[in-house]
Amino acid sequence: MKKFEEKTIKSEKIYNGKMIQLQVDDVTLPNGKTAKRELIKHPGAVAVIPITKDNKIVFVEQFRKPLEKSIIEIPAGKLEEGEEPEVTAIRELEEETGYTASSLSFVSSFYTSPGFADELMYIYITDQLEKMENPVAGDDDEFIEILELTLDEAKQYLEEERIHDAKTNYAILYLHALEMR
Amino acid sequence: MKKFEEKTIKSEKIYNGKMIQLQVDDVTLPNGKTAKRELIKHPGAVAVIPITKDNKIVFVEQFRKPLEKSIIEIPAGKLEEGEEPEVTAIRELEEETGYTASSLSFVSSFYTSPGFADELMYIYITDQLEKMENPVAGDDDEFIEILELTLDEAKQYLEEERIHDAKTNYAILYLHALEMR
Repeated sequence: MKKFEEKTIKSEKIYNGKMIQLQVDDVTLPNGKTAKRELIKHPGAVAVIPITKDNKIVFVEQFRKPLEKSIIEIPAGKLEEGEEPEVTAIRELEEETGYTASSLSFVSSFYTSPGFADELMYIYITDQLEKMENPVAGDDDEFIEILELTLDEAKQYLEEERIHDAKTNYAILYLHALEMR
Repeated sequence: MKKFEEKTIKSEKIYNGKMIQLQVDDVTLPNGKTAKRELIKHPGAVAVIPITKDNKIVFVEQFRKPLEKSIIEIPAGKLEEGEEPEVTAIRELEEETGYTASSLSFVSSFYTSPGFADELMYIYITDQLEKMENPVAGDDDEFIEILELTLDEAKQYLEEERIHDAKTNYAILYLHALEMR
């Protein structure tokens, strides 16, 4: 849908980074006036809800520089160019948790922050986990602790805001709704 | 929690915009190596799930320049400096929908994209809506269409990805879980 489309008059690339690009566009509004739009370009991301055979959820705790603290999240990572989300999902699961999965089910996808960023997050779930005999190495600038939690434990961490991000809060609500069926 | 803390060696401000700031930090990793972190500073945002007396949900459709399309979302807006989230919530509800609310209940809060941004989203719900006799004007660069939908209609839009963002997908899952109680 292109309702209330804002046409670009001018587009200025401000920053071209490793993860994000920043661009500022001058646009024409539906009433003919102009405005500036600040846009973050992001390759997109994928997250997995990994459920173990004894019905625990695998989380990772890592330091998030933008928040200046560590939080507990479901495993996730950004899409490489041209990569299918399912491939990213398995790769990030393997690198971050030491588990692999023989199959994934799609849960949902959403733009994380459509007011200023184009990041699209894909969420998958799997209960087909296998411990890898030879775990693969992850990014060398990622430091991660693995936690396997029951849903009740995860809800407690959410209450304490140690779980506190969109994909993970969504995942817990999703599992909660599943449990109520 | 400061687990795996990344200490800032150098911080460079790249862009200071109307909605976001971009900063690039050089950090020391737990293993002593260094890395760059690209950080978006955002004032935070608030969203409301507004439920009418006939049990419909009030949504707004607007063009989102980062996505180059319009999507259907629950009413939301960014926090002004020093403003309480509840105050922002009522203001955005009034400006975007023409409804006001005598009370709000807190649902959840989450970081939308903790890998690169510090945006914290607060979500509230209310079924205490009143049509305003003299609607207030919103931002003069916002063009919005109001939709009142049943939960089933909203789920259909979600299926079609016309609803497709973190806070709104979360809201629909939240109402779905409520309905199953």
